[in-house]
Amino acid sequence: MKFVKNYRCTLCGREYSKNEKLYTCPECGEKGILDVEYDYDGLKNILSQSYFDNNRNYSMWRYKDIISVEDEYLDETLRVGWTPLYKSKSLADKIGLKELYIKDEGLNPTASLKDRASAVAVIKAKEEEKKTIACSSTGNAASSLAGNAARLGISTVIFVPERAPQGKLAQLLIYGAKVISVKGDYKETFELSKKAIDHWGWYNRNAAINPHLVEGKKTVAMEIAEQLRWHVPDWVVVSVGDGCTIGGVYKGFYDLFQIGLIERIPRILGVQAEGCCPFYTSYKENEPLRPAKENTIADSISVGVPRNPVKAMNAVSKSGGSWITISDTAILEAMKLLGSTEGIFGEPAGVAGLAGLIKALNENVISNDESVSIIVTGNGLKDVKNALAAVEAPIICNPDINQLKKYLSGLQ
Amino acid sequence: MKFVKNYRCTLCGREYSKNEKLYTCPECGEKGILDVEYDYDGLKNILSQSYFDNNRNYSMWRYKDIISVEDEYLDETLRVGWTPLYKSKSLADKIGLKELYIKDEGLNPTASLKDRASAVAVIKAKEEEKKTIACSSTGNAASSLAGNAARLGISTVIFVPERAPQGKLAQLLIYGAKVISVKGDYKETFELSKKAIDHWGWYNRNAAINPHLVEGKKTVAMEIAEQLRWHVPDWVVVSVGDGCTIGGVYKGFYDLFQIGLIERIPRILGVQAEGCCPFYTSYKENEPLRPAKENTIADSISVGVPRNPVKAMNAVSKSGGSWITISDTAILEAMKLLGSTEGIFGEPAGVAGLAGLIKALNENVISNDESVSIIVTGNGLKDVKNALAAVEAPIICNPDINQLKKYLSGLQ
Repeated sequence: MKFVKNYRCTLCGREYSKNEKLYTCPECGEKGILDVEYDYDGLKNILSQSYFDNNRNYSMWRYKDIISVEDEYLDETLRVGWTPLYKSKSLADKIGLKELYIKDEGLNPTASLKDRASAVAVIKAKEEEKKTIACSSTGNAASSLAGNAARLGISTVIFVPERAPQGKLAQLLIYGAKVISVKGDYKETFELSKKAIDHWGWYNRNAAINPHLVEGKKTVAMEIAEQLRWHVPDWVVVSVGDGCTIGGVYKGFYDLFQIGLIERIPRILGVQAEGCCPFYTSYKENEPLRPAKENTIADSISVGVPRNPVKAMNAVSKSGGSWITISDTAILEAMKLLGSTEGIFGEPAGVAGLAGLIKALNENVISNDESVSIIVTGNGLKDVKNALAAVEAPIICNPDINQLKKYLSGLQ
Repeated sequence: MKFVKNYRCTLCGREYSKNEKLYTCPECGEKGILDVEYDYDGLKNILSQSYFDNNRNYSMWRYKDIISVEDEYLDETLRVGWTPLYKSKSLADKIGLKELYIKDEGLNPTASLKDRASAVAVIKAKEEEKKTIACSSTGNAASSLAGNAARLGISTVIFVPERAPQGKLAQLLIYGAKVISVKGDYKETFELSKKAIDHWGWYNRNAAINPHLVEGKKTVAMEIAEQLRWHVPDWVVVSVGDGCTIGGVYKGFYDLFQIGLIERIPRILGVQAEGCCPFYTSYKENEPLRPAKENTIADSISVGVPRNPVKAMNAVSKSGGSWITISDTAILEAMKLLGSTEGIFGEPAGVAGLAGLIKALNENVISNDESVSIIVTGNGLKDVKNALAAVEAPIICNPDINQLKKYLSGLQ
């Protein structure tokens, strides 16, 4: 916390001391989401390219000086972050793009980007000596919280909408969480979790409410920059639900830019599902955010009432980026394409970025000679049902070579 | 390949030039599994602790000098290896062990240890200019092959027994493999794949047949040693199916010992399921290996006719280790225990090692004051059905706080 200066409300601009244990702005209430501000001049003195060249901590904690946590418990967490950034060959060729990078966040400990936020959440809970931590989630935030909390001996109470995929549910239960499956949509799930957290006083890992979680998520952007030797791509593409992840992506690049480690902030393309696109609608119509229906297979981004609108809208507008929507069919197509060309298996929300990129190329939002990094936010194993819907069933065969010869007649 | 000296048949001892493109010993046939031998004196001159301290390649290729591959394609693969080794606190306490380490192999790109072998297989296929690569597998070898091959633009033909879990099947199909689901057990699956490979001349990734795959798998042992600053634990525990993984674990420590990087080879405990334990039976009865039934939820180690008996039996006998069996119930208990205490979700075969360790402690095969590393060989997300069988279903709740208060009345 040494380089944290203060918190600032993203609505009213009020400043709060870093020593206060706040979630949201006491003046603005729940919508007054706080931003963590840093002493960039102080950070400039220690965070250079050569500092990182010599930093042997290959996890998100290599950026600990610029995350709002103390050092005390960092050695005890799961190993989150420093996921691979692949340079694409065949996929880039196939979609007609000069330079494509793929950040595989499915290789985090509980198989999604959300581990970056949950690792911070469990550290904060330890710092505040809380024994239990709670959140509502469409799935990944919950399973990552349960896993990361288990490692540190913290209990978890998780509120999930009934529609959560089996893989995510299995993770929760195996990690020993108390799971409340709420009959209702994400909004109702969120509201019940809020009431319960107020009642019991647990630590609150709801990403929009808690200002520290974006600070964890931003490390994905920092890694992309560092893995490209601090030469950021023209665009970074990420799928958007609650708005916290895209907010984190922007914050990561913003911090690096303030410190002088990168020369510019990439444009950010926010991708939403056609069946649930409140940000896109607000952007297109230039109107305030309105509740949207939740009708997409991409459960992780199926959020009709996003809780972090300010940071998400800022991420796109301040980076000179754009919003786009894609169909569920395009998501399943992208899943197969990414798997078969690059060997990366993403969940529906995880490959939505690729689907968005393809559409953005077709619509000339992104041009073919630009460089782009997509972020695959979660592993496809979390949602096998939808993956199986994307592909044809295998041939079933008796142990008979002649039968096989017929089936594989075209193969080299 | 610079430091590869030759191949040697594990049955007859004949030596073959490293320039021959062999799978098994031409004299002994399919059972004449080859071992890759290295120029340890040459390796001693370059592979020191300080060499590894300064090696910035955090993947299995940091050990490339001691793997039977050329350098040419290494930069193109998925990022396999350098998975975390966690020191346990609460789980070690709970099972009454002084020092416990957990290697989470589920964080490999396709979520299992098998990626280490598949990464080598696709490199060898490239070196031999093969366009298609095939294998038969209970699941993980296949899905890792399909993923790793897709990344390098190689086609895959996969033979799986009908019982393969949905998660593994989904991976295969998303990675674009041609999948043949064989009506029969693993043995019949293997036989059909062999016929097809002979017919079409594809590159053969069947782990026992192909001598290079153990060379990939051994890197898991090398990482355990390096992550413990070259002070190996007293025991390493690993689940056993076909026998190639345990063979690889032994080979990794053996190589390091020959080079002088470690002072001894840890004892190796081979864990089999009660419902499929040909190695254990052979060991206990001091009789040759006999075909066994395949009756366990741990599909990855459900191999009634293991194809790599020599290397597997040697791993235990030469390390002064032991064999043990565990029930499916113990596997499911271990799954919950590992998840809730350490935040690591392993598939049934992945947590079989922990179940074996617990039994070995109870039976004084391993004593409480020893140090042990278990290897969690695959991610639990690959087999959600069995995970859900291990736990109680979550409470389903209306968005009603009073209902909740009743349910959570005991919580802090």
